[in-house]
Amino acid sequence: MKQKVVMGLSGGMDSTTVLTWLLNQGYEVHCCNFVYGSKHNEYEEQAAENVAKKYKVPYHVFNLTEAFKPMKSNLLKSGGDIPEGHYEEESMSQTVVPGRNSIFATIMCGVAESIGASFIALGVHQGDHAIYPDCRVEYVKALDTLIYLASDRKVQLLTPFLNTDKYGILEYGFKHDTPYHLTRTCYKDQKTSCGKCGSCGERIEAFRLHGTVDPIIYDGLINWDIDIKDLKGDKL
Amino acid sequence: MKQKVVMGLSGGMDSTTVLTWLLNQGYEVHCCNFVYGSKHNEYEEQAAENVAKKYKVPYHVFNLTEAFKPMKSNLLKSGGDIPEGHYEEESMSQTVVPGRNSIFATIMCGVAESIGASFIALGVHQGDHAIYPDCRVEYVKALDTLIYLASDRKVQLLTPFLNTDKYGILEYGFKHDTPYHLTRTCYKDQKTSCGKCGSCGERIEAFRLHGTVDPIIYDGLINWDIDIKDLKGDKL
Repeated sequence: MKQKVVMGLSGGMDSTTVLTWLLNQGYEVHCCNFVYGSKHNEYEEQAAENVAKKYKVPYHVFNLTEAFKPMKSNLLKSGGDIPEGHYEEESMSQTVVPGRNSIFATIMCGVAESIGASFIALGVHQGDHAIYPDCRVEYVKALDTLIYLASDRKVQLLTPFLNTDKYGILEYGFKHDTPYHLTRTCYKDQKTSCGKCGSCGERIEAFRLHGTVDPIIYDGLINWDIDIKDLKGDKL
Repeated sequence: MKQKVVMGLSGGMDSTTVLTWLLNQGYEVHCCNFVYGSKHNEYEEQAAENVAKKYKVPYHVFNLTEAFKPMKSNLLKSGGDIPEGHYEEESMSQTVVPGRNSIFATIMCGVAESIGASFIALGVHQGDHAIYPDCRVEYVKALDTLIYLASDRKVQLLTPFLNTDKYGILEYGFKHDTPYHLTRTCYKDQKTSCGKCGSCGERIEAFRLHGTVDPIIYDGLINWDIDIKDLKGDKL
């Protein structure tokens, strides 16, 4: 019998690649998507649903909009504008959503216990570490301890890309046919990706490094034809 | 300026006494109640609201019924009957709700960060340790680490009664006029307290040890007139 794992599928390229990875490892995967009032929630949820359909895995949407109402963040509909610029810039901290990953993970841990899953999985990675406290290595370690104890030692945390950047994620995904054309990464409240927010920037950088044109549609023309040596270690 | 703290107020005697304690310590207290589909939720929420009104503190109800739908527990409306008997008996584990304290605490941590509070507080105590993994000392330590890291070192956890039993809580509360007549502890889906579930049993035991008649109404007649020496260390 396959081991079960409950994962957070946002519809972005990171969590979609985690899904690829988990299925390749032979897990029975149960996907959770969280609607929490972010500006890009509607488009993100649609992407997650499409990815889950493509992979034919169970998919459950949790509507937490009410629970996130008191939270202050520019990523939320209740907050200010999404900043543009590089994803490691200080201004991006306006997009931190207090409690987000902890709330998602603890709900998934409860689901895991309830369906007899031994793991929950998150798509956190190195690129998130600078800005998002709830994506850092020390946080992930604390979260693993928490869910293990909360579940009476039944559930553990998997974060296959914790020490990988978006380029490394892409490299794995392309080798294993991850359906990137179905994913959505942009933080803004619009159907097409803006190409200017920190989240788009990081994705574009990863595709450029990989030497591949991103299959999703951006607002303006993106120059994909940049030599890798001009990019490595540089900002966009 | 007073330091802010966000606490979980269930309407039971433990969290109500935590509220007494926090106000005595001089904190500005913000109370959160969570509706999550438990059998006793409706009565519990009313009790919490009455306590918050009595103390004139801000009170916010989070409706998480949908988020808890996949969770399996006899405490929930979707589960089986509430067991009767002593609160440390194995059968009481049917009342564990997967993920519960973690989900409540991580939401409160997000709220704390958003309103500039330095602490969240929970009413966990010694009597919960045997049955509920998410009330044990090691769990509380892990939760404190988690919220501290998740909030970028801004929020910490207070659990004033972690190493106290219900009798100790009552002793503190009576010294500081905690309005126990407004509280509700029973797990069952009924207005009056059943006096038979593990939760009622623990409360009754505490009042007996204290030599005081509980001011709330129970289904049947409770014998309050028991000598303390017959109770100490014994089951009800």
